[in-house]
Amino acid sequence: MANIKYEIKETVGTISENNKGWSKELNLISWNNREAKYDLRDWSSEHEKMGKGVTLTKDELIKLKEILNSMDI
Amino acid sequence: MANIKYEIKETVGTISENNKGWSKELNLISWNNREAKYDLRDWSSEHEKMGKGVTLTKDELIKLKEILNSMDI
Repeated sequence: MANIKYEIKETVGTISENNKGWSKELNLISWNNREAKYDLRDWSSEHEKMGKGVTLTKDELIKLKEILNSMDI
Repeated sequence: MANIKYEIKETVGTISENNKGWSKELNLISWNNREAKYDLRDWSSEHEKMGKGVTLTKDELIKLKEILNSMDI
């Protein structure tokens, strides 16, 4: 991760938090000064360390919303 | 990835597909014969290779749905 620059442009929401202080968050993040993308990922407290995650475009987020709304959850 | 066993129990939905044949999918997956979890991840065609992703419990998926529905997208 050493040479990846990122900036959290917007914290959209926190999905969960575990007992070690890590939280799963949806953020809007700019990676290496590129256009910001939505990003679903685990973070340690204060965003010091990041876990694995996925980045999503706005179109993908809309599609994900449709899928979730069609599920029986 | 060599020693991780997984079984895709249910393909919930496909979020996008790129021009290399990889698709971003929401699936219900059992990892190492454990209880199945929801999983958001990129996959090559025929699920031969997997990219990075996040696993989500049902509660996390419900919370994610709430967040997405509260967004102006």
